[in-house]
Amino acid sequence: MRSIRPAIEGHSMKAKVHVTLKQGVLDPQGKAVQHALEALGFGGVADVRQGKFIELELTETDPAKAETEVEAMCRKLLANTVIEDFRVDIVEG
Amino acid sequence: MRSIRPAIEGHSMKAKVHVTLKQGVLDPQGKAVQHALEALGFGGVADVRQGKFIELELTETDPAKAETEVEAMCRKLLANTVIEDFRVDIVEG
Repeated sequence: MRSIRPAIEGHSMKAKVHVTLKQGVLDPQGKAVQHALEALGFGGVADVRQGKFIELELTETDPAKAETEVEAMCRKLLANTVIEDFRVDIVEG
Repeated sequence: MRSIRPAIEGHSMKAKVHVTLKQGVLDPQGKAVQHALEALGFGGVADVRQGKFIELELTETDPAKAETEVEAMCRKLLANTVIEDFRVDIVEG
């Protein structure tokens, strides 16, 4: 397991964004992966949910401002907030 | 930032899998996202890389066995190891 280093003000930064389907929203892609795993002989999988992982390299050097900016990006483009949740982690670049 | 709880033997478990393009592999989807962000007025983005985030609910209760199993799933189905890297985190379900 890799630990996430927190961002330090003045350093270059990265944002790690996870976009996942909200609980209760059907995930046909996840189901397809689950069935494919079963067909390959991997029986011990009760459920699969597939989401997106987006890494952004930022020129902003203030972690708080970067977080606000990336959250706005998620709401405007990266996530469909009707059916998806998102999580933003700002880390040292 | 959410901390990842390590898995405890005997408890139900989840695997969190990140599949990302290897460094140097062209990411046209990431570039499309970067250009769309620029068009929306988000100028401070130097680079975007898009990967997959897959959550698996497992019936296996031994964390070490679960990790080996999920790594095999990645090599066989979830990741294309010619162009993609993967990372597996086993956590309490």
